[in-house]
Amino acid sequence: MTDLLSRGGPDAVAVLLVGDELLLGSVADTNGAWLAQVLRAEGLRVVDLAIVPDDVARIAQALRRVVGWVGSVVVSGGLGPTSDDLTRQALAAACGCDLVTDDAAAAAIRSWFAGRGRPTPAGVLRMAQRPACATVLLNPHGSAPGVAVEIDGSLVYAVPGVPAELRSMVSAAVLPAVLTRVGLPTPTVSTSLEVALLGESAVAARLADVEAEVAGDPSSDVAYLARPAHVSVRFSVRHDTAEAARQRLEQLATRAEAALGADVMGRDGVTLAEVVLAALQERGQTVATAESLTGGGVAAALTAVPGSSLAVRGGLVAYATDVKASRLGVDPDLLARHGPVHPQVAQAMAEGARRLLAADWAVATTGVAGPDPVGEHPAGEVYVAVRGAATGRVRALRLPGPRRWVQRLSVAHGLDLLRRVLRDLPEPTGAAVGESPLPGRG
Amino acid sequence: MTDLLSRGGPDAVAVLLVGDELLLGSVADTNGAWLAQVLRAEGLRVVDLAIVPDDVARIAQALRRVVGWVGSVVVSGGLGPTSDDLTRQALAAACGCDLVTDDAAAAAIRSWFAGRGRPTPAGVLRMAQRPACATVLLNPHGSAPGVAVEIDGSLVYAVPGVPAELRSMVSAAVLPAVLTRVGLPTPTVSTSLEVALLGESAVAARLADVEAEVAGDPSSDVAYLARPAHVSVRFSVRHDTAEAARQRLEQLATRAEAALGADVMGRDGVTLAEVVLAALQERGQTVATAESLTGGGVAAALTAVPGSSLAVRGGLVAYATDVKASRLGVDPDLLARHGPVHPQVAQAMAEGARRLLAADWAVATTGVAGPDPVGEHPAGEVYVAVRGAATGRVRALRLPGPRRWVQRLSVAHGLDLLRRVLRDLPEPTGAAVGESPLPGRG
Repeated sequence: MTDLLSRGGPDAVAVLLVGDELLLGSVADTNGAWLAQVLRAEGLRVVDLAIVPDDVARIAQALRRVVGWVGSVVVSGGLGPTSDDLTRQALAAACGCDLVTDDAAAAAIRSWFAGRGRPTPAGVLRMAQRPACATVLLNPHGSAPGVAVEIDGSLVYAVPGVPAELRSMVSAAVLPAVLTRVGLPTPTVSTSLEVALLGESAVAARLADVEAEVAGDPSSDVAYLARPAHVSVRFSVRHDTAEAARQRLEQLATRAEAALGADVMGRDGVTLAEVVLAALQERGQTVATAESLTGGGVAAALTAVPGSSLAVRGGLVAYATDVKASRLGVDPDLLARHGPVHPQVAQAMAEGARRLLAADWAVATTGVAGPDPVGEHPAGEVYVAVRGAATGRVRALRLPGPRRWVQRLSVAHGLDLLRRVLRDLPEPTGAAVGESPLPGRG
Repeated sequence: MTDLLSRGGPDAVAVLLVGDELLLGSVADTNGAWLAQVLRAEGLRVVDLAIVPDDVARIAQALRRVVGWVGSVVVSGGLGPTSDDLTRQALAAACGCDLVTDDAAAAAIRSWFAGRGRPTPAGVLRMAQRPACATVLLNPHGSAPGVAVEIDGSLVYAVPGVPAELRSMVSAAVLPAVLTRVGLPTPTVSTSLEVALLGESAVAARLADVEAEVAGDPSSDVAYLARPAHVSVRFSVRHDTAEAARQRLEQLATRAEAALGADVMGRDGVTLAEVVLAALQERGQTVATAESLTGGGVAAALTAVPGSSLAVRGGLVAYATDVKASRLGVDPDLLARHGPVHPQVAQAMAEGARRLLAADWAVATTGVAGPDPVGEHPAGEVYVAVRGAATGRVRALRLPGPRRWVQRLSVAHGLDLLRRVLRDLPEPTGAAVGESPLPGRG
């Protein structure tokens, strides 16, 4: 395994992240891990990753250190319009060319601002510059173009550091060009299984057999990507023909799906909200929300999905306790007896929202987000409930972590409960009431 | 201005993260950003950060590249007991010493396992090795000791990559040793101005004079960090005394605040939601939300702040049009005449939520999130409104970008409108109705 990452070669890639903020600790990088995964899934090897400040000499030095050794270099950041964006100058220094203004890039920048009804700000046309020996990579999602240049036989691609822009430009332009250059002999196909609310180590334990099989097969690979309350398990297969690769991939994915059961919510990047909305749309039904500690997060997750207006009626954020009684009809005696943090309150909130907003289904959340406890209820004590015309379910949780995680996990549990009710799936196996799955590597 | 991060010196630190998993993308690094922040807070400068695989030659090469140039190097990872933990060998190669077994380290490892009632596993005593010229750093939270060695005048510290172990060893042993060695010459202080809803280039244009002043002053530095709908402008100053540094910093920050006017919402990481909640709490007043296209995002942003329950009554997500009439009391004739995407509808929604939820203030959003237009209204046509007992304001917007950005920018505009009304600030200068600030670091 180590040799794989220690040597250069045409399929080796170096990643260079540019930005003072990354060395000042103001922001944690996410582009490096994304690039590593995506490039790896295509059969390329990221063998070097460096972070350098917004400084012409340092960027150029880092570039010169790797060109000629690796097949390609991805440089991220330092392409914006301000005086501390210096990647273009550094590329020019590294390849020994002058900077020139690229007419197509200038036109694209002007049209980007014009399309938004704004005059092109002074100074922004700096972003149209490129080394004379380079070409420009257009940026469909932002105003800063990228730059492509060959130095000492290595393909160097500079793209903006904004994750959405980097991802789209790497997927659409950089990756195809690198793969063509490398001449990758055998097709790679991949798919990912999306698993909500299980930790990475729990998922890996369930997949021990599949992992063992992958380990014994040099043509296939498995990688885990943990995000908060969500693990993606990505299988990729490299084979002589695309058909053989796809067959092998499907075999692995199907075995993994069987091992994970109802905990797999879908494939290839699908989210809990998307799964829930698809299930509602299949049934031609609608949903409402009643939220206390999540403060609108469940409704926001649902309405983030395009087309959600077909199924989402609306929701009530009943943050103050009296609002739960006055607007959702929760029994004031119940609230007086138990307070708002109680499974019956969650159920009554769901029923209240279903009626108030005339929806087929409702999902409700109540609990203590923290950081402080409320009365005898510790931070992280949470109840989520789902109600339909003839059925309902409630889930009790003890969630760990700071306020933001408690809220985020509560949103995910509310949506997962609705997913299981709508799809008639059992509650998580082995997940005792109060299980507290955390994002994170095991 | 980037000179601060581009040059070496006794107070300069290089960080070297060792591990195949970091290049394979299996795990995203968190140690780098933590080290950058902590070292910076002590007046040290992280000037270089590199990730290398578990490979003796590559680790040693990366070390040799920085020793003699920086005052110290922190190496993280590769100190475990398995065959791919090779940092000790690489340190020996870099300093030209043989590996020897350290008796104190071996005893500590045995006692670590004994304290857990376990026999010391075979092979684990590899971790007691160190280069002959090095010393050992004991690890209070794990079994793998660290290593300290001086190479070419640089202090090199190798610590385990497990975040809890790294953090405790850096705080307790590495940092004090480095600070003693450096003799803490000149204090650095910094502050950031938080600006909502202006693009990075627009902020930079407003700060041209301040930037020019910083550029001519080697002791001061300015950096921009763009996040969605938010730019942080960070000033840092290094001076002979902390007092002189603070005075100079305050001078720069005050000038920048004057140039940015009401568009600065605060300092040092404050968010729009925090500013709004602080303004409400000063007045002892409450707020409610009425949301259409943002689907709960405004309420979620407010309730993400600890203690928000003092000011947030709740909110109604009125996603379906009939809910706007039936639950918020928006005039059905108004809805029939103009549809839900109209400034008067936004105002009526705010007034309805204020009454429904018995709040002093309400903020409302209505518009087209996209991706598709609704009737004659294009995606991005958005109205946000604020109503209090005796006052109100509405803002009309044409927001660019995909659905997620339209929603996120609408949330920010709703909160910013409330901030300005509560603080009696004017609407953005030069921000024509429909200005569409976008995140965008190049």
